[in-house]
Amino acid sequence: MFDDGTYLIDVEGEKVGEINGLAVVGSGQYSFGKPSKITVSSYRGKAGLINIEREARTSGSLHDKGVMIISGYLGHTFAQDKPLALTASIVFEQLYSGVDGDSASSTELYALLSSIAEVPIKQSIAVTGSINQRGEIQPIGGVNEKIEGFYRVCRLKGLTGDQGVIIPHQNVQT
Amino acid sequence: MFDDGTYLIDVEGEKVGEINGLAVVGSGQYSFGKPSKITVSSYRGKAGLINIEREARTSGSLHDKGVMIISGYLGHTFAQDKPLALTASIVFEQLYSGVDGDSASSTELYALLSSIAEVPIKQSIAVTGSINQRGEIQPIGGVNEKIEGFYRVCRLKGLTGDQGVIIPHQNVQT
Amino acid sequence: MFDDGTYLIDVEGEKVGEINGLAVVGSGQYSFGKPSKITVSSYRGKAGLINIEREARTSGSLHDKGVMIISGYLGHTFAQDKPLALTASIVFEQLYSGVDGDSASSTELYALLSSIAEVPIKQSIAVTGSINQRGEIQPIGGVNEKIEGFYRVCRLKGLTGDQGVIIPHQNVQT
Amino acid sequence: MFDDGTYLIDVEGEKVGEINGLAVVGSGQYSFGKPSKITVSSYRGKAGLINIEREARTSGSLHDKGVMIISGYLGHTFAQDKPLALTASIVFEQLYSGVDGDSASSTELYALLSSIAEVPIKQSIAVTGSINQRGEIQPIGGVNEKIEGFYRVCRLKGLTGDQGVIIPHQNVQT
Amino acid sequence: MFDDGTYLIDVEGEKVGEINGLAVVGSGQYSFGKPSKITVSSYRGKAGLINIEREARTSGSLHDKGVMIISGYLGHTFAQDKPLALTASIVFEQLYSGVDGDSASSTELYALLSSIAEVPIKQSIAVTGSINQRGEIQPIGGVNEKIEGFYRVCRLKGLTGDQGVIIPHQNVQT
Amino acid sequence: MFDDGTYLIDVEGEKVGEINGLAVVGSGQYSFGKPSKITVSSYRGKAGLINIEREARTSGSLHDKGVMIISGYLGHTFAQDKPLALTASIVFEQLYSGVDGDSASSTELYALLSSIAEVPIKQSIAVTGSINQRGEIQPIGGVNEKIEGFYRVCRLKGLTGDQGVIIPHQNVQT
Repeated sequence: MFDDGTYLIDVEGEKVGEINGLAVVGSGQYSFGKPSKITVSSYRGKAGLINIEREARTSGSLHDKGVMIISGYLGHTFAQDKPLALTASIVFEQLYSGVDGDSASSTELYALLSSIAEVPIKQSIAVTGSINQRGEIQPIGGVNEKIEGFYRVCRLKGLTGDQGVIIPHQNVQT
Repeated sequence: MFDDGTYLIDVEGEKVGEINGLAVVGSGQYSFGKPSKITVSSYRGKAGLINIEREARTSGSLHDKGVMIISGYLGHTFAQDKPLALTASIVFEQLYSGVDGDSASSTELYALLSSIAEVPIKQSIAVTGSINQRGEIQPIGGVNEKIEGFYRVCRLKGLTGDQGVIIPHQNVQT
Repeated sequence: MFDDGTYLIDVEGEKVGEINGLAVVGSGQYSFGKPSKITVSSYRGKAGLINIEREARTSGSLHDKGVMIISGYLGHTFAQDKPLALTASIVFEQLYSGVDGDSASSTELYALLSSIAEVPIKQSIAVTGSINQRGEIQPIGGVNEKIEGFYRVCRLKGLTGDQGVIIPHQNVQT
Repeated sequence: MFDDGTYLIDVEGEKVGEINGLAVVGSGQYSFGKPSKITVSSYRGKAGLINIEREARTSGSLHDKGVMIISGYLGHTFAQDKPLALTASIVFEQLYSGVDGDSASSTELYALLSSIAEVPIKQSIAVTGSINQRGEIQPIGGVNEKIEGFYRVCRLKGLTGDQGVIIPHQNVQT
Repeated sequence: MFDDGTYLIDVEGEKVGEINGLAVVGSGQYSFGKPSKITVSSYRGKAGLINIEREARTSGSLHDKGVMIISGYLGHTFAQDKPLALTASIVFEQLYSGVDGDSASSTELYALLSSIAEVPIKQSIAVTGSINQRGEIQPIGGVNEKIEGFYRVCRLKGLTGDQGVIIPHQNVQT
Repeated sequence: MFDDGTYLIDVEGEKVGEINGLAVVGSGQYSFGKPSKITVSSYRGKAGLINIEREARTSGSLHDKGVMIISGYLGHTFAQDKPLALTASIVFEQLYSGVDGDSASSTELYALLSSIAEVPIKQSIAVTGSINQRGEIQPIGGVNEKIEGFYRVCRLKGLTGDQGVIIPHQNVQT
């Protein structure tokens, strides 16, 4: 899937409003991590944050909660003086099975900020981690599988030595 | 159906806001591709993109997701300076069985752009392929059946030598 | 029902915003065509096209789709320069069993145009036929039963020699 | 219920925005007609016609359809030059069992017109009958039980000789 | 519950926008009346009457209908010349089991009027009774249990000789 | 969970718009109290109070009712002269199991007021208690388990001598 180009993912270069998120697929002995391209389109409008997965009924409650927490963070940080006038749509590209959990909420926020500020994100770095309304990172589960998943994709696409993963500091074990 | 004029489809000439999409009907040994006329009406308004299939409860989650991705692409591309003031309705004409999947999202985007820009589309070309929020084409399934389906319709309607199919480059096998 | 005046239907004269639509009731050996008075009220407002059957949960998906296609046609045809500022409600009068299918969508459009333009429609003519977003007529089923149904009502109400039925050209068999 | 004052109903005098509607309760051998006080409150606002029974989930589809037909009639008749700016709420007072059917739609329209125009309605007259978007009266069922029901209430409250019932002309049998 | 201060209720003094409503809990031989503190908060806004129980899915259809009738009464009485610009939220405090029926609608209206006009209500008086869109009181059920229920609370809190109950005149038996 | 830093909670210092709420988890013999970080983001907007748990379908009816009571209190207290122009989102951070009951409504109000006024809250104090539309505290259940729960977290994080719990006065037993 990743090696035949069926699944569009970049592990090199920089892109605005695009990021590699990490999700866990399967369970127990055979669970593995699957990187997902998350994209954000932000533009003039008043609709605020559009969680496309929610609109398409492919989002679970905890993913919805995560996106609304991002929205609260955004208002708290940028709308103290005047209201946000923004439409931004978030989506997991080529994800056909639905999404749940909040383990991508920090990742979604980074793609959103990249899109709004037009600051590119290194595609060589995949990100996982939950976030709260104050922008603090919260730990998530399945960190090893997620790292291995991204490593596997990079190996297929070509290891550059620059590739890596950002995980919550609480998930780091020394 | 196609030869007795019951199903309205053009395989010659040019039309604005109309395109031949390709869907797969049936499964396994007996699956075949059925071309569908997709039309878009765009006009003054503020409703944005109206997915008629969704409003009529004849659209599945993945088709809904595809149309919302088109909407994100549209905002990203054309609404950086001022909000879109547009109503556009997309429909699969004479489709009575409902639609799902994202394999027509690029096709729907082309019909939308044709309608907005009033640029005609060659009806001799049928299109299949998924699209992401950045406008990148993503591969789809059942490509052979879809090509055969359009060929069959063209043979019935009259082969002109100009007819063909646009498929995602990832689906091309050499 | 038609002969005792229980069911209000005109087969003579002209009326604005009223038309005789043709629906098929029953199935197989005993199916028959039942004419229905469709009325449209159009007036100042911003609600657009109101499908009363949908609001009352007496409309199926395919009928809903048909009315939204009319709405797309209307915008495409009349709202290129400025938005439509119109409220128009469509209803099948004295229909207590619900409606589905798109075989009355052209009929509904004619009643709508009659109401907006205040141009009367001959009540001696009943109409059946589906329509797409470009205003092209699409064929429908049960044409014979529908013609017979209207003929039966005309016979009861009084044959004038001016009565007839408009059907899609694709349904004409020579 | 009617004789001990539990159920508030007037069979004498005049009132604005209030009318005696006639509904059939029960079925077959033991069906009987029960008069219901229908009231309308109309005032400044933009909400249009509020069908309180619908909002309270005590209204069936056919009753909903009837109220929307009244709304279409109202727009057709009074909003050709400028939009209606009106809020009006319709309710069956002291009806705890829900309402369905369109046999009170003309009655509801009269109460509405009375409320808007501040013209009183004789409470000695009870009304039944369906109406279409053009304001034409349509026949209804159970006319005898309804007449008997109102007669019974009048007898309990005191026969004045002025009391009567308005029924659709199609329901009159000579 | 009432004697240990768990349930907040006043049976002396005056308060704005607060009233003691009477509901019947249980059924048959063991039914008893439970007084409930109803509060209304009214303030600047455009949301109209907010039935908090409905928003929280703790309100039955008949209670919803009752609150909408209050809303109709309010518009009829105060919005003939200009639209109401008001937000007011009604709630049964410390009621965890949900509410149905219209036996508190007059009570709710009094609390609403008290809140809007800033006129205090005597907490020594509990109220029960339904109301229609014209502000007429309608009788309710379980009047004895309700009176006994309030008496019991007053006895626990301290009988002052000023305490009493307002019931619909139709419920008075001499 | 609390000692390994998985669950983000502060039991020292001060923060704006953040508070330690107390919920009861489990039941009977093995029930225990689990402190939850509640955060509020308030900013310019017109959406009013956003109950994120409700939007994510992780909130029960009684929790919804509690948040709407806070909203009524807010309007009553601050919007007598002009409408509130405020968006504020409330969430239980890192709560994946949903929330019900009104035992955190006073807690949520304090976090809201802290966020609006930018006045910090001592994180050494955890709060439990229900509130009504007048801002009066109402007693709640499981007070001992809640106190023990917060004590346990403080012991793990480090007892400072300043830590404590605010409970409804009705829950105090002497």
